[in-house]
Amino acid sequence: MYKDNLDLIKQLSRTSPSRIVMLVIDGVGGLPRNGRTELEAAHIPNLDVLAAESICGLSLPVSPGVTPGSAPGHLALFGYDPVGYQIGRGVLEALGIDFGLEMGDIAARGNFCTLDKNGLVSDRRAGRIATDKSAGLCKLLDGIEIDGVKAIVRPVKDHRLVVVFRGGSLSAELSESDPQQTGVIPDEVTALSHDASRTADIVNRFISRARDLLAGHHPANMLLLRGFSKRPQLPTMNEIYKLKPAAVASYPMYRGLAQVVGMEVLTTGATIEDELDTLKQNFKRYDFFFVHIKETDASGEDGDFDRKVAALEHIDKVMPMLTKLKADVIIVCGDHSTPAMLKGHSWHPVPLMIYSAYCRPDGVRHFSESACLAGGLGRLPAVDIMPLAMANALKLNKFGA
Amino acid sequence: MYKDNLDLIKQLSRTSPSRIVMLVIDGVGGLPRNGRTELEAAHIPNLDVLAAESICGLSLPVSPGVTPGSAPGHLALFGYDPVGYQIGRGVLEALGIDFGLEMGDIAARGNFCTLDKNGLVSDRRAGRIATDKSAGLCKLLDGIEIDGVKAIVRPVKDHRLVVVFRGGSLSAELSESDPQQTGVIPDEVTALSHDASRTADIVNRFISRARDLLAGHHPANMLLLRGFSKRPQLPTMNEIYKLKPAAVASYPMYRGLAQVVGMEVLTTGATIEDELDTLKQNFKRYDFFFVHIKETDASGEDGDFDRKVAALEHIDKVMPMLTKLKADVIIVCGDHSTPAMLKGHSWHPVPLMIYSAYCRPDGVRHFSESACLAGGLGRLPAVDIMPLAMANALKLNKFGA
Repeated sequence: MYKDNLDLIKQLSRTSPSRIVMLVIDGVGGLPRNGRTELEAAHIPNLDVLAAESICGLSLPVSPGVTPGSAPGHLALFGYDPVGYQIGRGVLEALGIDFGLEMGDIAARGNFCTLDKNGLVSDRRAGRIATDKSAGLCKLLDGIEIDGVKAIVRPVKDHRLVVVFRGGSLSAELSESDPQQTGVIPDEVTALSHDASRTADIVNRFISRARDLLAGHHPANMLLLRGFSKRPQLPTMNEIYKLKPAAVASYPMYRGLAQVVGMEVLTTGATIEDELDTLKQNFKRYDFFFVHIKETDASGEDGDFDRKVAALEHIDKVMPMLTKLKADVIIVCGDHSTPAMLKGHSWHPVPLMIYSAYCRPDGVRHFSESACLAGGLGRLPAVDIMPLAMANALKLNKFGA
Repeated sequence: MYKDNLDLIKQLSRTSPSRIVMLVIDGVGGLPRNGRTELEAAHIPNLDVLAAESICGLSLPVSPGVTPGSAPGHLALFGYDPVGYQIGRGVLEALGIDFGLEMGDIAARGNFCTLDKNGLVSDRRAGRIATDKSAGLCKLLDGIEIDGVKAIVRPVKDHRLVVVFRGGSLSAELSESDPQQTGVIPDEVTALSHDASRTADIVNRFISRARDLLAGHHPANMLLLRGFSKRPQLPTMNEIYKLKPAAVASYPMYRGLAQVVGMEVLTTGATIEDELDTLKQNFKRYDFFFVHIKETDASGEDGDFDRKVAALEHIDKVMPMLTKLKADVIIVCGDHSTPAMLKGHSWHPVPLMIYSAYCRPDGVRHFSESACLAGGLGRLPAVDIMPLAMANALKLNKFGA
């Protein structure tokens, strides 16, 4: 009767004047140093007060033990099954540079690399050439047209680039040209399905033209492509939740993810204060806001426990800017844990609170891993957060009579 | 994209130098006598210390309310959906006597029984004849060949035996010959699928020959067969987890289950000390160890609360032999509960702890049913234990970018 839970929620959702703010503290969960996690070591009185008024829990982005990347972590927060809806590497790289991907475009991640005299890959990263050098070479390749298909070439960082193939009916079912090792020739791109043979031919001809144009530009005398993918066709958050959603995020990748689920992406500045100011300026114009904070994840990835604590305290300090807007529902959550101890994303469940006038508070008085363990939401799949937020915003009709 | 969660884990798993030890305390969960379960009544300081350093919870082998047999209980611990992957009764009986089942073999559980003068079953268990008597009769029948199919006949215990049909293309889709009542003739074995008609014919001819050979051996003058099954083709733990797994178990059934999922079965002695010594001797040669302890289940099945308490205290006493090996991940778990009060397996969730340097400790200070209830793992399906162990061993790649 319903394809999945999201389909059920779609049938039940309704518009109402209430507003939801989802504050995503990227990588918020941690692991203890001297018995206290980053959240437990941080002085966060405002978040603690909000926790006392909220229902708390721990969210599981994908499934037990599975460490999510940013894309599945966020898709789950937006209510989409992150295993069912996957976003290709090329698309993510394009989203990460704010590239306006169109439906049907094929995006690939690229590296400039070095070929030796015999045509064998001697350095897969072309000596990690500087971004401005890379940008010049991208210009050289940008706009190559083959059989009506245009290659749009953009620099990312250092030796990394994005190539987007646009025009006609293209398939992303392609093998990669990056051999992932040195001492061998680049692989030919092959069609992984019958439909893809024309696209494979076009990509190979593009690579061949690029090789000619790069010939004199040692060490970046060739490029390698991988992660061919199309922007996935997801139902939008408006289609599912009947929300008018907006995203406030200073990092391009998160703006891109928001765009993929149909959010309007607001222009904002680099700091948390900038982001909360953008939220305030636009508060009356939308009924759902995704506000993304990156610094907690960045410091966790760097293994910098103290900087992550400071980032959490910074967020706490500006929380009144958010709470005084009087959103009907405030979700404070993370896309995954990033313990400084592990210097990367991890599989650990993520502290979560949902505030509304209708939540059933649970006695949790602190926003932390151990306090949320005793919360009324228990351990729940992250895909359940949006339905709960919608319910708390009184935006879901009764199911059945 | 992924068939199921195990398939996802298979895509993410990687090898690493870390080691995992899974200590299965068979039937570990219990029910209270005078307010304390077996675990709560036992003095287990070493397990309690490990619990304090671990993340704890309660595992659910199959689903709420369902009491598992040993096979589904263990399959779940190894990460296999115990409802999706079932092991036939005949195969289990063969595994239980350390019989080396080959792919394609059909195994059946058998009973010697008594037929009266009219050919009706008068005793389904042939007066529970002694095992050595039974063994002699099995020799009489062993090796009968019909149409190139060989019947291998082995005694189990008392009147019970195993018959394995080997050779050619056989089907296990057969009805049983055991009528499950007295006063009737044994049933004919019939084909339950078109493919099985030749096998049914061979089995019936074997039964007929056996009847002739047993004619003078009253009360065991006939045999009844049931549970025809083939060894299931499961993906191995090496295929899924990229582990090199070994099993340390003194009871044949558990060695057989380990073999079915592709573990190497190590030779060991009968006591817990023997088993832990085997673990120590082989510790450098594998990266996953399943260590099985039977006595807790056996005493629970006997309804002997005090003996189960003693078995738990025995395990606790030798725990340092295990912990000083410094495995990166230690799982202490059970395949199901066996409360002495119920004298058998039960549906109750099973105390569980996972120790690693990267687990998020949860304040649980005792290894018991009530303490684990407050654990950070909550109540979780037993099939999630292996993915969590793999994550804690840093043997899973990130999902998505």
